[in-house]
Amino acid sequence: MGPHPAVAAIRLAVRRVLHDILNDHPTPETGSHERPAPPLVLVACSGGADSMALASALAFEAPRLGIRAGGVTVDHGLQPGSDLRAEEVVLRLRELGLDPVEATAVTVGRGGGPEAAARDARYAALDDAAVRHGAAAILLGHTRDDQAETVLLGLARGSGIRSLSGMAAVSGGPGAARRYRRPFLQLDRQTARKACMVQSLPVWDDPHNADPAYTRSRLRHEGLPALEKALGKGVVEALARTAQLSRDDADALDAWAGQAESSVRDAAGLLECAKLYALPPAVRRRILRRAAIEAGAPAGSLFARHIEEVDRLITGWRGQGVINLPGKVVAQRQGGRLVIRQG
Amino acid sequence: MGPHPAVAAIRLAVRRVLHDILNDHPTPETGSHERPAPPLVLVACSGGADSMALASALAFEAPRLGIRAGGVTVDHGLQPGSDLRAEEVVLRLRELGLDPVEATAVTVGRGGGPEAAARDARYAALDDAAVRHGAAAILLGHTRDDQAETVLLGLARGSGIRSLSGMAAVSGGPGAARRYRRPFLQLDRQTARKACMVQSLPVWDDPHNADPAYTRSRLRHEGLPALEKALGKGVVEALARTAQLSRDDADALDAWAGQAESSVRDAAGLLECAKLYALPPAVRRRILRRAAIEAGAPAGSLFARHIEEVDRLITGWRGQGVINLPGKVVAQRQGGRLVIRQG
Repeated sequence: MGPHPAVAAIRLAVRRVLHDILNDHPTPETGSHERPAPPLVLVACSGGADSMALASALAFEAPRLGIRAGGVTVDHGLQPGSDLRAEEVVLRLRELGLDPVEATAVTVGRGGGPEAAARDARYAALDDAAVRHGAAAILLGHTRDDQAETVLLGLARGSGIRSLSGMAAVSGGPGAARRYRRPFLQLDRQTARKACMVQSLPVWDDPHNADPAYTRSRLRHEGLPALEKALGKGVVEALARTAQLSRDDADALDAWAGQAESSVRDAAGLLECAKLYALPPAVRRRILRRAAIEAGAPAGSLFARHIEEVDRLITGWRGQGVINLPGKVVAQRQGGRLVIRQG
Repeated sequence: MGPHPAVAAIRLAVRRVLHDILNDHPTPETGSHERPAPPLVLVACSGGADSMALASALAFEAPRLGIRAGGVTVDHGLQPGSDLRAEEVVLRLRELGLDPVEATAVTVGRGGGPEAAARDARYAALDDAAVRHGAAAILLGHTRDDQAETVLLGLARGSGIRSLSGMAAVSGGPGAARRYRRPFLQLDRQTARKACMVQSLPVWDDPHNADPAYTRSRLRHEGLPALEKALGKGVVEALARTAQLSRDDADALDAWAGQAESSVRDAAGLLECAKLYALPPAVRRRILRRAAIEAGAPAGSLFARHIEEVDRLITGWRGQGVINLPGKVVAQRQGGRLVIRQG
């Protein structure tokens, strides 16, 4: 008799990703008699159901593929006793057979709101752990439900399809283009939870996840259920598929804009309005956005309405003056050229 | 003292669109002594707040621009007494000074669900009215709130950014590429309602709009409010902006796919797998989708997962057999070529 379907599902998802990691990190031909060290894969684990399920599947699959499996838990220090919790997670990961396992404490700043600050601190700690342990990859437990929530959060920004593209199945860290892997991005949260249950893995429910002070928590417990009630049960899956399609579309359009950019600059490197005008609006606005960021505008403060205003210097020219952009960047039209620079 | 801000807002929105219509339909230089007939613009009016506000603004603005203003109301015959209602709307439009005004009765079929069937019948009747009266354009009362709902309905399909692009500000009918105009697409429903109130225009609340049997109604009364509660008040605006950005992006990618298609066909017109492979996934999948539709697959039944399966003949070739697509279309790989045809 095989494992429970939920356990089979989480293991299959992890196995596929481990194969990808092995493809990315072929065992080097050393030529010596030394056997090369097997690659190490770490799981980032909060102790919650998603990442505990992930840790259990990694512990099961990794040895079968000649991979070493370890784990990291990040103590955000945001709740009393979080250090004890982290130690408990370390014990559970060790019980699964993972090695090395460590807890790493971070100090969460205040930049960009509480969720963004915690995330920044967490990834910095994970990057550091990956480098210290020489890990080939870090697995993250984000599920399809997390992805759906991320798409809705992006939708609320109204800033275009890049913000609809959610989290990538593979993404980079400093000095490692493919460090982070999300094996559960197409798996629903319920399956992860079930897999923990049938394996008798104790899991921890982060009270933040149910705290209505957090946007994501409100979305999870009120927004998404209401949307499912109105639109049907397939909403989460549809949102996750939208993420993938939007990501591919955004990548293609970014590539197009990157190629087109050189063709719309004159010999002095200035953007020529007539040539910009001839491009599709979607490509032109991406070039304008890149130019503004290059001139020093912070990407996170540069909204669609800023780019639309700059675009009107091209498509609706009636002698407008200087346009002020975030980061003290200014845009103006001069003699058929668009000048975007630090003001 | 000028008009109430809500009335000023609806008039400004209509005035802008009437200017666009005049630009599209310049008065012909007849060279004779006859004065050319002024263009006619019709408003499609259900008697609800949005389209009554639209009718009132059209009645006010059109004469000032030398435009004739008329109105059409469609009797869908779905509720008892709908014919009397339609006659009442006709009277109200006449009271606003519109001429010609007519009620037109349609028979709603069953294709594609009740909402789609009613829409198809309505647009056929409006197209017919436009042709009979020689109208330059028909104005539709869709607001930013309708647009937000349409984006969410598209999101629930999970079929990519084209379905996120909502309704166009300008769209076509048979034989008329720019027949339909939506002046209120950036105006909120509340403003239209307010404009009716301060002008003492009686409005009719379609019971369908509050009937939870309709997806759109559930979305309006439950889904969107819950989403606003979770994500903040700007959600409707963000969804409407997403629509515009997605539309531009989808247009650009469709254009790219259209251009790339000829370059990936061999002398016999067959799709070459190696050349398809070299394209960005977003462009390749659009070419595959076009090819499937050209071969006879109905666009509405062709989902992202179908195209993904065909795409794996290119990106994950391991000797797969024939792939069955809707409309009895089959796709298979033969000697480095992709053959998509009626099976």
